[in-house]
Parts: sequence; structure tokens; C-alpha cells
Amino acid sequence: MARAGRRPGNADTRAEIVAAARAAFAEFGYEQASIRGVARRASVDPALVHHYFADKSALYIETMKLPMDPHQIQAEVLGDDGSFSGERLVERFLAQWEMEPGDREVTSFLTLAQAMAASPDTADAMREFLTERLNPHGLPGESEQMQQRRRALISSQLMGLAWIRYVMRLEPVATTDRFEIARWVGPTIDHYLHDDLDPPVDPAAPAD
Amino acid sequence: MARAGRRPGNADTRAEIVAAARAAFAEFGYEQASIRGVARRASVDPALVHHYFADKSALYIETMKLPMDPHQIQAEVLGDDGSFSGERLVERFLAQWEMEPGDREVTSFLTLAQAMAASPDTADAMREFLTERLNPHGLPGESEQMQQRRRALISSQLMGLAWIRYVMRLEPVATTDRFEIARWVGPTIDHYLHDDLDPPVDPAAPAD
Repeated sequence: MARAGRRPGNADTRAEIVAAARAAFAEFGYEQASIRGVARRASVDPALVHHYFADKSALYIETMKLPMDPHQIQAEVLGDDGSFSGERLVERFLAQWEMEPGDREVTSFLTLAQAMAASPDTADAMREFLTERLNPHGLPGESEQMQQRRRALISSQLMGLAWIRYVMRLEPVATTDRFEIARWVGPTIDHYLHDDLDPPVDPAAPAD
Repeated sequence: MARAGRRPGNADTRAEIVAAARAAFAEFGYEQASIRGVARRASVDPALVHHYFADKSALYIETMKLPMDPHQIQAEVLGDDGSFSGERLVERFLAQWEMEPGDREVTSFLTLAQAMAASPDTADAMREFLTERLNPHGLPGESEQMQQRRRALISSQLMGLAWIRYVMRLEPVATTDRFEIARWVGPTIDHYLHDDLDPPVDPAAPAD
């Protein structure tokens, strides 16, 4: 039941719902969290949650966006001269999922992975997110198709790194300091960002 | 109900249960498939499924192992001279999830991802699988720790590539021919397999 004095359309109420949802997803995971539980936590009627968000997936997408503010990440990853460091991008990407105690709660990567595997909507949102946010410069004059390829390959390495670290927990990637991991994987990101990805075939190389 | 004449401990019955489970996981996904449904499909009593497999996760692990026969993959990836091609490994890895119609049914990567996200047991099994199967040679005389690092980084790129291709469906990785994808990602695998991953720090490089 909605508390007396709460009105639909109140920006604070919407923010409270999102905060409650973020806490619920962090505590219960994507599958177990419910609109009803989020409403209870925010002390509003479930119908009010539905007023703002079509379904659990839409609510999740909203909570997911917040920890990754695109302007903040862009500012943190770009050097003073506007250059883009693969190592820095890896470190900042991992930092998204490794908030310290006392920081505001963020969705775990495992929750995100569960949501993406369970719901095409969430995967769509994440795809849009990556497509909008990652703007590799690449080589001068190259096509939009090549930039798209760079983005997809960078995304593949980042998502896989998070998967190995947080879901599969494969050592030494699971427990090594993220700055060290960034040293290991940064060169791969730099390769996808800057190198010629269609090098001429070496005719001397053995066919396989 | 078990059919007349079926006895526990019959190797054929076990194989039939595994085949039924593989079909059920392919049709319904990990979450929706059930021991009961598998038993019905194999025409055996659910108790018999439990006789062989402790739970759904154990049954899934069994179905997951079969499409990736380690000896076959090893033979396909290694060149005639015993050398290991990153490009070939990527192509063979993707081929696991891209059986043609008429091939025996295999678990989809999406099902695998759902199972790993939902169950630590499945993630553990996949971790063991990767640890046993991937044996990078690396540089002469290097430590087991470094070989472990190479394995984890290769796994991160392969898992992320599959995630981007089959779950997030990010273009152009989603629809490009797997032999072409292998050309794009092969050099990254070769880097993790063969390069010095702890290069000396360049004192002239700007700190960031």
C-alpha cells in the first residue's frame, strides 16, 4: 500500500524505487528479486513501480545504468592529451564491480550476467550501452563498420574478463589486484583500438 | 514409471538419460529443464535419473562434456608440427556451438551461460574443464603460475567472444562467419599463448 502523501509522478519516489531495486538485485540476484519486494522495500504500492517501469527487466536496466556514468568513465579513461589507454579502461571497467564497503550499493557482475542470460531485453540494453559509450578512434579515415568491429572485440575481452573473474573465478584472474589484471589485458584492448585488424595475408605462412 | 526390463546400472539406460537431458536443455534452457521432464523423455522413473546424477547441475555437466571431446579438439587445434594456432583454436571453439542441422543436438552457449550464472557447480565444472584441457606451452622454463595466467586470459577472450556472439549478439561479431572471426581474434590468443606477459616497464612511458 502506498503511504499517505506519496503521489505518482514524484521524482523522489522514482529515485527511491530505483534505490530499492538496486539494493534488492544486489541482495537477491536478478531471478529472485521481485517487483513486489522492491515496492515493499521502497514503501510504495507495486502498481506505482509498474507506473514507472514496464517490468523487472526495465527496472533492472535503470539500476544498471547508474554506476556506469558515461561522462565520468570517459573522463577517467582518457589521458590529458585525449589518448585512450587500454590498461586504464580495463582498470575502470573492473572498478565498476568492485566498490569498497561504504560505497553506494552496485549491481554485481554476476547479477548482470544472470539478467542478460535470462532476458533478451537486458542484453539489448547492454548492447546499446556499449555501442553508445565506446568510441574507439581507430585508424584515420576508416569505416564505421571497422569501428563497430573494434567496439565488439573490446567488449568481448572486457565481458569475458569479468566472466572469468567474477563468475567462473578462474585463477589467477579471480583474486589478482585489478591494476595488475589491467597490465595483463591492456595490450589486447590497445590492439583492438589501434592496430590494423585486416593485415595483408603473409603468402609464406603455412595454410591450416 | 520405469519400463519393464529396465534395470539400474545399465550403461545404455544411462546414455539414454544423458541424451534425453541434452535434448531437454537444448529445448527448454537450463532453468526450465527438469529432472522429471528428462525422466519422462527417457521413459524412466525420475528416481533412476537421481540414481546416476545427484542433481540437475550434475546432469547438465555430463551433457556439457560430450560435445567437447578434449582429444578431438587437441588434435584439431595442433598443427602437424605440434604448433598451436590461436586462429584455429577460436574457430574450433566457436564450432562447438554452431553445429549444423542434422548434427547431434548440442547445448547452446546461452544455456551454458545460464547454467554457469545460476549454479556455482557448473562454473566449477567449466573451470576444471578449461584448466585440464588448455595446456599452453608458453616460454621455455616458465612457472606453472605463468601457464595458469595464460590459460585464464585465453579463457577470458574465448568466453567473452561467445558471450558477445551468442548472448549479446553485438555486430559484426554476431553474424560474421566464424572463420573470419577467428582471423580477428586469433592474434590475441597467440599473444596470450606465446608472448612475454611481464615485459619490462618502459621508464620513458608516461605514468597514468
